[in-house]
Amino acid sequence: MTPLLRQVLSQIDGPDPRVNEVVSALVRHLHAFVEEVRPTDEEWIAGLDFLIETGRVCTPHRNEFILVSDMLGLTSAVDEVNNSGPEGMTPSSVEGPFHSPAPAREPGAWISFGPERERGVPTVVHGRVLDCDGTPLAGATLDLWQANDTGLYDSQDDTQEIGNLRGLFTTDAEGRYWFRTIRPSSYPVPTDGTGGTLLRAIGRHPMRPAHLHYRVAAAGYRPLTTHVFLAGDPFLGSDAAYAVKEELICESRPRGDGEWGMDGPYEEIEFDLKLVPLDWKDEG
Amino acid sequence: MTPLLRQVLSQIDGPDPRVNEVVSALVRHLHAFVEEVRPTDEEWIAGLDFLIETGRVCTPHRNEFILVSDMLGLTSAVDEVNNSGPEGMTPSSVEGPFHSPAPAREPGAWISFGPERERGVPTVVHGRVLDCDGTPLAGATLDLWQANDTGLYDSQDDTQEIGNLRGLFTTDAEGRYWFRTIRPSSYPVPTDGTGGTLLRAIGRHPMRPAHLHYRVAAAGYRPLTTHVFLAGDPFLGSDAAYAVKEELICESRPRGDGEWGMDGPYEEIEFDLKLVPLDWKDEG
Repeated sequence: MTPLLRQVLSQIDGPDPRVNEVVSALVRHLHAFVEEVRPTDEEWIAGLDFLIETGRVCTPHRNEFILVSDMLGLTSAVDEVNNSGPEGMTPSSVEGPFHSPAPAREPGAWISFGPERERGVPTVVHGRVLDCDGTPLAGATLDLWQANDTGLYDSQDDTQEIGNLRGLFTTDAEGRYWFRTIRPSSYPVPTDGTGGTLLRAIGRHPMRPAHLHYRVAAAGYRPLTTHVFLAGDPFLGSDAAYAVKEELICESRPRGDGEWGMDGPYEEIEFDLKLVPLDWKDEG
Repeated sequence: MTPLLRQVLSQIDGPDPRVNEVVSALVRHLHAFVEEVRPTDEEWIAGLDFLIETGRVCTPHRNEFILVSDMLGLTSAVDEVNNSGPEGMTPSSVEGPFHSPAPAREPGAWISFGPERERGVPTVVHGRVLDCDGTPLAGATLDLWQANDTGLYDSQDDTQEIGNLRGLFTTDAEGRYWFRTIRPSSYPVPTDGTGGTLLRAIGRHPMRPAHLHYRVAAAGYRPLTTHVFLAGDPFLGSDAAYAVKEELICESRPRGDGEWGMDGPYEEIEFDLKLVPLDWKDEG
């Protein structure tokens, strides 16, 4: 430990012990970073300028710091330290910046109302919300959101009405949910800000594999925020946001049998979600 | 190493090896920080919101990220890794955010032209620019800047003309420089932004001990950016910016003998600066 670092740490003495703990750890890790890479003054200023520029890109509807955090795998790291649980649980995944309140809808409702409905592949999504032991959870709520076939969420796209490709559903007595939509597409994260600058600097593509976002809540269970990814997507191994987990990858199966109230060809995604009881304790 | 961290590191492969090195190190140290403090999602978002807010405070004349970097001792850490040198060298210190181009002035010139000239303690500052072996360096330039008696630089204060309390001087054949000013005062860093939020959170005062800023340049020598601090200042041991080094602390001696063209009581600061040859190599 350098004398400077010792001095900095010795003077951290605020009123909140958790703040002292977090800032002290940040100081230690960032000083270790400086000791290791020995940045020149110009490099350090370039780093601070990157942060200024990241701030400039932020708007009430765009949080570029979250994007940068995602691109460095930090958001997923935070997600992982907060979501250990029992065998069989559905893993969480990052929320991303595009959640907003969704309209409540009846079981089986369409959530696609824009021009993407004509262009996209009609898809039925269904499954159950369960305890980790398989007990169905009735009255659980599922808050769903996805991008359209061009990779845009309603909040990013003036051609979509607010609430398009979003829906709030409630499970029935058997824990079942279902809704109809278009098949999600892979899409690039925004690359016109510093998130894009970072990706180009480290030689990464901006693509996210096709996915649906879920927030699931049931009384007595830990709320779950996660993604469902589509099997076969070419970007599953290199998600720009590092959000993919094996257990979240699901087949989208072609069908054409007129079931689920569907005419003509459609695809079917079946995905069960297993929640962790609030009183679960890690015995590991 | 977590599987996630291994994946993130394995995908860093940009065109510039130094960028890959720096980003990889940053990713490792920040993931280690996350593993250690296990921030909740809310804490992580609070951290990113702090960065957004820091960006909001920045203007073309105010770089709040530099201030935050100073307050965590990071700017001084970067300074230290870049400025090793031989025994006897004058240590560098952080530049701070207030440098701007200074008017060239004749030896002995006053640099104080505002109302602070009436309120402050008249002070003569003089000394020599030398090689580390004591050889005087003629024709070296000294770029000086300081705050007024209320702790404000010209760029922060509409009552000061641009260039007030700044000056560019050249050493004579014996390496000597001298100028007249008011004695610098200790002052608080700006506390109305996130730098202030941080200081309050970690229980630190915002004060910087009284100082003069120097940038010194001489052909064949490493440019030196440093501070001169005044002995006896109550904030020498707890500088908000962690910029104090023992070798940079200097007496300001009361005098009243009519020398240096001064009428009445004044103070004298004598400070020599020893530069490092450009071809110096660390043999350690």
